[in-house]
Amino acid sequence: MFLRNQWYVACRAEEVTDKPLGRKVCNESMVFFKGPTGAIAAVEDFCPHRGAPLSLGRVCEGQLVCGYHGLVMGCDGHTVSMPGHQVRGFEPVKSFPVIERYGFVWVWPGDADKVDQTKMPVFEWFENPAWAYGGGLYHIGCDYRLMIDNLMDLSHETYVHATSIGQTEIDETPSQTVTEGNAVVTRRLMEGIKAPPFWQMAMRANDLPEDALVDRWQICRFSPPSHVMIEVGVALSGKGGYHAEAKDKAYSVVVDFITPETNSSIHYFWGMVRQFKPQDSELTAKIRDGQAKIFSEDLQMLEMQQKNIEAHPERKLKILSIDAGGVMSRRVIERLLAEERNT
Amino acid sequence: MFLRNQWYVACRAEEVTDKPLGRKVCNESMVFFKGPTGAIAAVEDFCPHRGAPLSLGRVCEGQLVCGYHGLVMGCDGHTVSMPGHQVRGFEPVKSFPVIERYGFVWVWPGDADKVDQTKMPVFEWFENPAWAYGGGLYHIGCDYRLMIDNLMDLSHETYVHATSIGQTEIDETPSQTVTEGNAVVTRRLMEGIKAPPFWQMAMRANDLPEDALVDRWQICRFSPPSHVMIEVGVALSGKGGYHAEAKDKAYSVVVDFITPETNSSIHYFWGMVRQFKPQDSELTAKIRDGQAKIFSEDLQMLEMQQKNIEAHPERKLKILSIDAGGVMSRRVIERLLAEERNT
Amino acid sequence: MFLRNQWYVACRAEEVTDKPLGRKVCNESMVFFKGPTGAIAAVEDFCPHRGAPLSLGRVCEGQLVCGYHGLVMGCDGHTVSMPGHQVRGFEPVKSFPVIERYGFVWVWPGDADKVDQTKMPVFEWFENPAWAYGGGLYHIGCDYRLMIDNLMDLSHETYVHATSIGQTEIDETPSQTVTEGNAVVTRRLMEGIKAPPFWQMAMRANDLPEDALVDRWQICRFSPPSHVMIEVGVALSGKGGYHAEAKDKAYSVVVDFITPETNSSIHYFWGMVRQFKPQDSELTAKIRDGQAKIFSEDLQMLEMQQKNIEAHPERKLKILSIDAGGVMSRRVIERLLAEERNT
Repeated sequence: MFLRNQWYVACRAEEVTDKPLGRKVCNESMVFFKGPTGAIAAVEDFCPHRGAPLSLGRVCEGQLVCGYHGLVMGCDGHTVSMPGHQVRGFEPVKSFPVIERYGFVWVWPGDADKVDQTKMPVFEWFENPAWAYGGGLYHIGCDYRLMIDNLMDLSHETYVHATSIGQTEIDETPSQTVTEGNAVVTRRLMEGIKAPPFWQMAMRANDLPEDALVDRWQICRFSPPSHVMIEVGVALSGKGGYHAEAKDKAYSVVVDFITPETNSSIHYFWGMVRQFKPQDSELTAKIRDGQAKIFSEDLQMLEMQQKNIEAHPERKLKILSIDAGGVMSRRVIERLLAEERNT
Repeated sequence: MFLRNQWYVACRAEEVTDKPLGRKVCNESMVFFKGPTGAIAAVEDFCPHRGAPLSLGRVCEGQLVCGYHGLVMGCDGHTVSMPGHQVRGFEPVKSFPVIERYGFVWVWPGDADKVDQTKMPVFEWFENPAWAYGGGLYHIGCDYRLMIDNLMDLSHETYVHATSIGQTEIDETPSQTVTEGNAVVTRRLMEGIKAPPFWQMAMRANDLPEDALVDRWQICRFSPPSHVMIEVGVALSGKGGYHAEAKDKAYSVVVDFITPETNSSIHYFWGMVRQFKPQDSELTAKIRDGQAKIFSEDLQMLEMQQKNIEAHPERKLKILSIDAGGVMSRRVIERLLAEERNT
Repeated sequence: MFLRNQWYVACRAEEVTDKPLGRKVCNESMVFFKGPTGAIAAVEDFCPHRGAPLSLGRVCEGQLVCGYHGLVMGCDGHTVSMPGHQVRGFEPVKSFPVIERYGFVWVWPGDADKVDQTKMPVFEWFENPAWAYGGGLYHIGCDYRLMIDNLMDLSHETYVHATSIGQTEIDETPSQTVTEGNAVVTRRLMEGIKAPPFWQMAMRANDLPEDALVDRWQICRFSPPSHVMIEVGVALSGKGGYHAEAKDKAYSVVVDFITPETNSSIHYFWGMVRQFKPQDSELTAKIRDGQAKIFSEDLQMLEMQQKNIEAHPERKLKILSIDAGGVMSRRVIERLLAEERNT
């Protein structure tokens, strides 16, 4: 169903405080906590003593103390100690490789002995002060692939997000989709159009005339296991479009990390990084609020779509040219799933 | 379980506005909308493109526009168009025959090629200005047949509705039940009794002395698939009872349309038409409010009865003389179900 | 799963008022009501007429009148009468032996012909004015045995109840567990320690210096089917501990009646009887409020433990010395379950 030997975003780093955080990722109940070095660790949320949830416990000197009977769990899933008991014979619980990067906690839910740092994606903008990031988290009751479909086909903006980022020109402009290794890229370029409300706001914020004709671009990039980065922006028409100088455009990247919780639910980490006015935290908050509203418009659609598909497993959905991004992304996933099964 | 080749009430006509309305009828997820002529149409609430719920879309010039990617669905379940795509090869979704009548939208959830206008019930009072109607809708978690049982045996009024329409005389007076073709009729006549609170109110409204002795009648009529009309009223005692002149009685009909949603839930359209003071809209509202309260008293009973029966599928329920109405109605349903299976 | 031929607490006696009370015990839906002598009776919450819940009815002269159609049910599960009907042929529903004692209603969910008064537990303190009782009821979504485990191993107090009754000395002091017939007793004695907050309060209430060193004891006693009485207290250090004179100690018994509702939920009747200031009803209320808070701290732990165990049926939980009380109690239950199957 989903790839296991991959890095998934489990949470924002700040969600793991002095207290442990319980979260299910790819059907694995995990607990995240700060280990002895301050680095975040993840083990099964299951005390090897009596099955209590370790996430109800506390962290003491970098070890997780079960809130039921005080078993002390180490970052590696081995029981360290327990008041009044020998713990040598205790079966370990699973521990999960973790990388803390870009403000997120990334977890590898699969086989720990196959952990592969090179699979960790690289994002230039998170660590570059010329960019600013804002984002949030939604829990959605749908198969993670429906969310990939959604993001790899932005023609839905015209309908779902008609009042913010949608415009009929999206629909009327064909997109091109290509596979680049394990990535899938869908491009749509619209020239000489009027910017929709969200982008008018971005142009104002960037000191550009909001009423001017613009060239608009949407470049959706899927990469395994389920990340979708979308380069979006508008430039004053005739100034080079995507390649225009920074002063002539408003440019940002929609950052989507989709983490399967179960077969029919996801943690959806949405956000946006932008290249303009990165120090303006008020603008960051404003964009995040706008994006929160826009992405909330997809929730009901995706959850009802999930129910419809579950009710009719016999039906084959149509595959149109606009679906190429989702379809090709699913093919990459299928190919990698087959590889996982064979190794 | 339930008859499919029949007309069921799906909604009040006013529920279908400029926006489409999603509702499940007989396990079919349907969406209702106004077609190009203004007539209401019903198709599956399932977009043939990617399974999105069409009910989240909008209506544009009598066609349903999917709220996800703009597929345009016609009243007949065939895709009309989709921005940027050829739709000739699209599989149609089911469309459901609809009749708009009496302020309701009637739908035929079964085989469209067996649609039969003559099965549409005829109600004289809805279109006669000498009558006034008021009603409402309850969603109840029970098998639709438990609601038929309820309405075909009004001896429950003595217990469930003790403070409004119940009185011990109902219990003490036997009823007669007969089958008339596919209809089942249960009659109970009580003579020289005191009217219960609801009927005292109706007598006052009809300028009759509320304390007078009355003859009271209850004539429950089941007709397929699951309609129950109940003629109810009181006349000043000795004035002819059911056949008394209008000035000597308060007379109305309880109008019940029971629409299965699933095997264990219903849309229950309750209401009342009355022959007295039909122009008095304040009285209509007052009666509707009273009826809403009375019918709400059945909700918990029916839902817990459903749970009890599900927990004990092995138990055979008693069939008493008071149950004749429900039992005979179920026999009609069984006979028609067998006919449906054989055609 | 649970013993059936045993006495379980169904409710506090005052919960059965003029109205009947519906409650599920050991997967049996029961209705409790006051019979003709005023004694509480219990029958299935299932009307033999049409399966309606009798608990929605009313009590009339010691008989239960169904709220749907007026069937009159006797204390023995036989239908007494029904308006307008002969009831001789009606199948009886189950009736359940009931004992009203100690302020509780005890029910025997098993075979009525095996009812055994000698299995009814005897508690001296409930009827002795030198003792005062206060308690409450929690509904918890867990197997009743997880609650027995919890109460037979008070080392969890150090972690779950750190701010009230927990203290590290509990953890550091080994306990002894023995089986005494069908009972299991776990003892822990701590000498020369400081009293935790709850016991400091009890000492103040008992006119003892709250800062004094004390000897503390915890004697947990499981008895079938699922009662756990815990003698707890503190005495001024060196005054004889458990056997100290009343003036030198604060002594009480935690009274726990665990009643399975289903295989994965319980009615948990918690409470405390105390030997000091029994007439002080303000103190009773204060202790009950404190205990309500303490026991509420176990709820989430037990419900999440239940879910964890259900998710991993293949895992064998560890059995440590601290678990001896729970483990030996489960063994008693297993032995008695085998006896039930063989008789």
